[in-house]
Amino acid sequence: MKIMDDIYQKALQFHKKHRGKIEVKSKVPLADRETLSLAYTPGVARVSEEIGRDAALAYEYTLKQNTVAIVSDGSAILGLGNLGAHAAIPVMEGKAAIFKEFADIDAFPICLDTQDTEEIIATVKRLAPVFGGINLEDISAPRCFEIERRLRAELPIPVMHDDQHGTATVVLAALLNALRVSGRKKENVSIVISGAGAAGTAITRILLGYGFSDIILCDSKGAIFEGRNDLDGNKKELARLTNKDKQMGNLSKVISGADVFIGVSKPGLVTEEMVKTMNEKPIIFALANPTPEIMPGVAHRAGAFIVATGRSDFPNQINNSLAFPGIFRGALDNRIRQFTDSMFVRAAEKLAEYVTNPTTEALLPAQFDKGIVLAIKETIR
Amino acid sequence: MKIMDDIYQKALQFHKKHRGKIEVKSKVPLADRETLSLAYTPGVARVSEEIGRDAALAYEYTLKQNTVAIVSDGSAILGLGNLGAHAAIPVMEGKAAIFKEFADIDAFPICLDTQDTEEIIATVKRLAPVFGGINLEDISAPRCFEIERRLRAELPIPVMHDDQHGTATVVLAALLNALRVSGRKKENVSIVISGAGAAGTAITRILLGYGFSDIILCDSKGAIFEGRNDLDGNKKELARLTNKDKQMGNLSKVISGADVFIGVSKPGLVTEEMVKTMNEKPIIFALANPTPEIMPGVAHRAGAFIVATGRSDFPNQINNSLAFPGIFRGALDNRIRQFTDSMFVRAAEKLAEYVTNPTTEALLPAQFDKGIVLAIKETIR
Repeated sequence: MKIMDDIYQKALQFHKKHRGKIEVKSKVPLADRETLSLAYTPGVARVSEEIGRDAALAYEYTLKQNTVAIVSDGSAILGLGNLGAHAAIPVMEGKAAIFKEFADIDAFPICLDTQDTEEIIATVKRLAPVFGGINLEDISAPRCFEIERRLRAELPIPVMHDDQHGTATVVLAALLNALRVSGRKKENVSIVISGAGAAGTAITRILLGYGFSDIILCDSKGAIFEGRNDLDGNKKELARLTNKDKQMGNLSKVISGADVFIGVSKPGLVTEEMVKTMNEKPIIFALANPTPEIMPGVAHRAGAFIVATGRSDFPNQINNSLAFPGIFRGALDNRIRQFTDSMFVRAAEKLAEYVTNPTTEALLPAQFDKGIVLAIKETIR
Repeated sequence: MKIMDDIYQKALQFHKKHRGKIEVKSKVPLADRETLSLAYTPGVARVSEEIGRDAALAYEYTLKQNTVAIVSDGSAILGLGNLGAHAAIPVMEGKAAIFKEFADIDAFPICLDTQDTEEIIATVKRLAPVFGGINLEDISAPRCFEIERRLRAELPIPVMHDDQHGTATVVLAALLNALRVSGRKKENVSIVISGAGAAGTAITRILLGYGFSDIILCDSKGAIFEGRNDLDGNKKELARLTNKDKQMGNLSKVISGADVFIGVSKPGLVTEEMVKTMNEKPIIFALANPTPEIMPGVAHRAGAFIVATGRSDFPNQINNSLAFPGIFRGALDNRIRQFTDSMFVRAAEKLAEYVTNPTTEALLPAQFDKGIVLAIKETIR
C-alpha cells in the first residue's frame, strides 16, 4: 500500500497548508457607504420586514435559494467508523468544495456534537431556515433511516442521506449499463449484495423498486433471510423483500451462481475462488473504500466480465459525486418540496443514458464532465 | 423620510438581484483527479483519522481556525423586534459579508427556528465543532444574558453577543474621545443611559468597570433604582450598581444636569427642551436605528457639544462594525479560550487611541480603515 501511504502523506500536507478547503466570500463589494447601507443597516431592515411578513420570501432575498447544509454526526466517516464530529469536518468541507465546483451550490458543513437520534433531528430542524436543502452524510445505520424519514416528514425543504441515495443512484446507473454491455435483462439477473448498512439498504431498495427481483443481501453474519433471529427492524423488512428462497449461509455460499456482486462492505471479503463459482461473465462492483472487496486484477483473472470499484485509479469508478451535485442542483432549481424514490431512479437512468456507448471499462461518464449536473437536474422534479 | 424610503426600495432591489450576499467557495481547485484525491477521498480519510485521535487538530487541518457562526433566533432584529428566524437571514448574511471584507473571517449565518433559551444553548453547543468562535446576534434581552453566560461556561470556543459587547466597546471608545475633546475626566462625569436591553446593559457594565460611577439607567418606565418593584433579575442587579441616590422619575426628569446622554432605545425620546436642561456642553449619543432619539441638528440647536448616532449620513457614526471584526480576528489569531470584560475595555481604548486628534465631528476612525482590525486584534488575548 505504498501508493496509499503517499496519498495520505500528501493529503496531510495539503490540509495543513490550506487550513480549510472552503471559504465564505462576499458576493457584493462593501467598499463604499452606499453598498454597506443597502447590504446591511439601514437598508436590510426593509428586507427583514418583508421576510417577517412572508418567510417564503427568504428564497427571493437571501442565500437560502442556493444553500445546502451538509450534516454529519461523525458516526460513520468514510470507511473509518465512528470518529466523532471534529473528524467529520474535513470530509464535509471536501464535499462542500465539490458542491461548489460541480454544481455551483453553496454548501456548508454542519458537524454535530451529538449522536442521539432525537437531538440530531431537533437540531437540524432548528437550523433549517437558512438552507434550501439538507444533505445528510456519514451517519451510521440504522439511525440514519429514522433521521432521514423524520426530517423529510417534518421539514419543508428536501432532505437526502447521500450515503444511501447518492450511492444507490450511481450503482443503479452503472448496473443498467453493465446489463447493456453484457446483454442481460433485469428480469433474469441474480444479485448478491454484501453490506446491509446505509448504502446496502438503499441499493437493495432502489433495485427492488426498479424491478430486480432476485436479490440476496448479506451482512457480516451471512445471508439475511426471513426468520433469522438476530435482525433489527430495518433488516427484518429487507428480509421480507429479498431472498425469496430463504437461502442461509455466508457470502461464499450464496454468491455461487450469482450474475452480479455488489459490495459495500469490507476490504478483501471476496476471493478469486468465490468469483469462479459465479455465473458466466459475472459483474463485480467491489465498492469498499479505499480497499475493495476484491482487487480488479484478481477478479478479472477469476473470470469477471466487468469490475467497478470506488477508486479513481481503476476503470469504472462508482462515486456519489456523479449524482449528488445534479440531484441537489435540481432540487434547488425546481424548488421541490421533498425527494422521492422515483427521482433517484430517473436520475440513475439519465446518468446511464448519458454514456452513449458504454463498455466494460467505461460504464459511467467521467467525473469532471460538467454536462452530468445539467442532465440529472432535469430529473429532479 | 423620503431618503429612507429610497434606501429601502434600493435595498429590496439589491437583495432581489443578488439573492444572497455571501457564497461558499472552494479554496482549492478540484479540476483534476489528484487534487480531488487529496481534498476528498481517499486522502481526506487520513486527516479524519488524525483529528479523530486529537480533536484540537481540527484547528490545523480545517476551516475551524478561521470560521465564526453568526447565531440569531430573530427575536430582536435591528430595531424591528421579533420577526423570527427567516427575517434574520439577510441581516446575518450582511454581517458575514462584513466579517469577510473587514477581517478576512469566514462567517456563516445560523438562524434558529426556536426562541427557547435551553434549546438555543443546546443547539449552539451541538454545532460548535466546525467553528472557532460564536457571534450571538439580535437575541432579545433578558434571554441573551443567560444564553451568552451559559455558552461561555460550557463551550471551549469564544462566544460574544455583539449587540452587547460590540456596541459597548464602540460606545466606550467614542466616550473616551468625547471626554478628551471636551476636557472632562471620567471621575466627574454624570451619565444617563436610555434603554436597558442588551446594549444598554452592556454599556452600563463596561462603563462601571472602567470607573464611571455616576450612571442612571432608564427603561421605558423611567429611571431604574434599587427597590423599584417591577424589575427582572438583570435590572435588579443593574439597579444595585447604578443610581446611587435612587432617583426616580422618567427620562426627562433624570436627564436634567447630566453631562452625557447615551440612547439605545427608541426614536424621538429626547426633546430639544430636555437637552437644554443638561449640564454645559452636553454629549449626546443618540443611537436608536434608523431614527435616533434626537436628530443631530435639533440637539446642536439645543446646545449639544458633541452628537453621535448610529447612522452613516451624520458625523460620529457609532457602529459595531468598528469593533467586532478586530475582536474576532484577535480571538481566532490568538486562540483565546474565552472573551473577558477586560478584552473589550482594551479594545475600546485602542479604538479611541487610534484617532490621533479626535474632534467634535470625528470621535472615531472611518469605518473603512483597514488598520482598525490590526490594532484591535492585538488587545484580544
